[in-house]
Amino acid sequence: MPEMAIKNAFYAQSGGVTAVINASACGVIETARKHPDRIGKVYAGHNGIIGALKEELIDTSLESDDDIRALLHTPGGAFGSCRHKLKNISENRREYERLIEVFRAHDIGYFFYNGGGDSQDTAYKVSQIADKMGYPITCIGVPKTVDNDLPFTDCCPGFGSVAKYIATSTLEASLDIKSMCDTSTKVFILEVMGRHAGWIAAAGGLAGQTEGEPPHIILFPEIPFDREAFLARVDHCVKEYGYCVVVASEGAQYEDGRFLADAGAKDAFGHTQLGGVAPALANMVKQALGHKYHWAVADYLQRSARHIASATDVEQAYAVGKAAVEMALEGKQALMPTIVREQASPYQWKIGEAPLSEVANQEKKMPIHYITDDGFGITQDCRTYLAPLIAGESFPPFENGLPKVAKLKNELVEKKLRTPFEL
Amino acid sequence: MPEMAIKNAFYAQSGGVTAVINASACGVIETARKHPDRIGKVYAGHNGIIGALKEELIDTSLESDDDIRALLHTPGGAFGSCRHKLKNISENRREYERLIEVFRAHDIGYFFYNGGGDSQDTAYKVSQIADKMGYPITCIGVPKTVDNDLPFTDCCPGFGSVAKYIATSTLEASLDIKSMCDTSTKVFILEVMGRHAGWIAAAGGLAGQTEGEPPHIILFPEIPFDREAFLARVDHCVKEYGYCVVVASEGAQYEDGRFLADAGAKDAFGHTQLGGVAPALANMVKQALGHKYHWAVADYLQRSARHIASATDVEQAYAVGKAAVEMALEGKQALMPTIVREQASPYQWKIGEAPLSEVANQEKKMPIHYITDDGFGITQDCRTYLAPLIAGESFPPFENGLPKVAKLKNELVEKKLRTPFEL
Repeated sequence: MPEMAIKNAFYAQSGGVTAVINASACGVIETARKHPDRIGKVYAGHNGIIGALKEELIDTSLESDDDIRALLHTPGGAFGSCRHKLKNISENRREYERLIEVFRAHDIGYFFYNGGGDSQDTAYKVSQIADKMGYPITCIGVPKTVDNDLPFTDCCPGFGSVAKYIATSTLEASLDIKSMCDTSTKVFILEVMGRHAGWIAAAGGLAGQTEGEPPHIILFPEIPFDREAFLARVDHCVKEYGYCVVVASEGAQYEDGRFLADAGAKDAFGHTQLGGVAPALANMVKQALGHKYHWAVADYLQRSARHIASATDVEQAYAVGKAAVEMALEGKQALMPTIVREQASPYQWKIGEAPLSEVANQEKKMPIHYITDDGFGITQDCRTYLAPLIAGESFPPFENGLPKVAKLKNELVEKKLRTPFEL
Repeated sequence: MPEMAIKNAFYAQSGGVTAVINASACGVIETARKHPDRIGKVYAGHNGIIGALKEELIDTSLESDDDIRALLHTPGGAFGSCRHKLKNISENRREYERLIEVFRAHDIGYFFYNGGGDSQDTAYKVSQIADKMGYPITCIGVPKTVDNDLPFTDCCPGFGSVAKYIATSTLEASLDIKSMCDTSTKVFILEVMGRHAGWIAAAGGLAGQTEGEPPHIILFPEIPFDREAFLARVDHCVKEYGYCVVVASEGAQYEDGRFLADAGAKDAFGHTQLGGVAPALANMVKQALGHKYHWAVADYLQRSARHIASATDVEQAYAVGKAAVEMALEGKQALMPTIVREQASPYQWKIGEAPLSEVANQEKKMPIHYITDDGFGITQDCRTYLAPLIAGESFPPFENGLPKVAKLKNELVEKKLRTPFEL
């Protein structure tokens, strides 16, 4: 067997970051370090693929094993992420030629790209340069997205932790409202992420088990918003249970596709105010029913809440990073490791794989049988699906009362190319 | 020494609930259970003082020791809380006569009232019926408020946990923004509670230690909002650090006292929209500087977040409940146990006491030397004060991925009075 050449690896984070994307980074880097006979250094793109284009490569070999391990409990994207989608090779050959130039200059033979649908599309396009432009590089995608909308994989690393945060927050806030509803707030609305799919909103449903337990209403982007039905349901809950807790997806929309968040509010200067769904709903409740309300918008808090991450999610995030490197070492190409559910209860899962060419062009919606007939709740099937994903706690270490996070040096490799690159 | 009569106790929760008010309930009930020779049953008011007026008394003796212990890790108010302030005896003698009637019917000799400033005022007024209306009852207040605005006590049970939640959330969300700021969101605004005092906003400042670390701007109710100075500072941070994280108190206001949250936004129907500070600030940033922004409103999530409670806070909440019962047994009257700071580092504290008559009429503001000269940050003195209050973790037990909470029976004692009472 001929001796294989040692090549460097490029790893980058892409799109909206999560509480566990750094756990995937940890999986990639730790696994690569175990194979010095095959993988030289792991260079991390500073701000995703932009780091490759601009030749801004972070030398992760300068980070200690302990600091790399600390990524396991550090939210955000430790190397910087970006929203930059590569066009097709035919449309923007210049970017691909630049990538090859940078890869060649730094002897990069492996490309690991950690992100959602758009990022898997980028990873797929990069894999094509191996064939179409004659530069041999092994490309493996690493799945990540709080939206849980990647196809082929049972779930997406990042989702389980948001789900746990939202379920926990819904449970806790509901106990607050319930305590006070006789003389104070009667309606509470929590706005959660998910512009196209209601997975995160659905997770709020785990806070209650039986009829009457909060949340009483979930609003999904999949179900057209019906103002009268919503208000009738709020009214019913306040009369029946004394209060009403609503979990609303930011993507909640009218039948004609208008988002509730774009309700046309104007500020004092007459500018359109980009509201949120929660205040829009709260206003609706106040105008129609007159109840005292409160609302919260979790926004980035939900996707960065590493302190309440799901242990299952952390494990899976690490595992897909590790698997990506192992697949590359096995000579696989243009794949993405997936999570395969072998059994719901007790939960068993393993790593599978999906071709990037197919991952890139699909979006996984919530199955309609996961939503109750009235459109306001989740079914038992949905609970069975979600339950294992929020299971287990993985608290970070704390110092002085705050979570300890990785503090990387993030030193850039010296540039070898003469020309800067303009995006 | 003559044998003392066994009397029942009345305990109630009042005002906005917290992540640890039930820990105080646990302290009261467990301590009372240790003195069966003096205290008979502990009756909890269903929805605070209203439970006493309506003769809706929860018999806590029907709850197991384990269930009472579970209160230690259950947010919200387990017996229901209320916003109902008793008037002076001269103004509303009817309510006081009713209280005496209920107390006499149920042989109640101890009154423990768990709340903030208004609630301590109520406890004080009830203590006066002992003298003024000839019904002997021992009244002890139990401090609680996330606003941290009670006088005489170094801090208020409930505040430390909100502070820990806000500091942790600010830290985590800041890592998210920082990862993405090159190509995406540049300004993040987190709105926190505190209508009159900036204690909670100040706690966000613990997320960063040094110049340039987020949060870059804190907006306090104590410092009149200066639009130009704010926008200049945001602009500076985006240029200097690439992004800007703002923690804004809901009480942030202009020099003339107008709240930022009442910015005059109208919805599509022309109704005034009760916004939040965060969207108002975000809009301001967008109009003036054009940066991409995100905002979050933590609302009830912050004060119910038992999952990230401060261990110091949980201990102190329990301790003031325990101390209240012990003070009552020592024959003390019309007092509130306080937290006395004996030493900042290493932190040492003990229980003290303050007369209800004085607690009831004061509000503790943030000392001005806790705020930096530019009005946008916290000083070292403030850090020294806040640091021990968020120290230590006190994670609840989890089950199926969610915090386990107490499930009390909350059975009402049979009524003995013939007449119902209308509030």
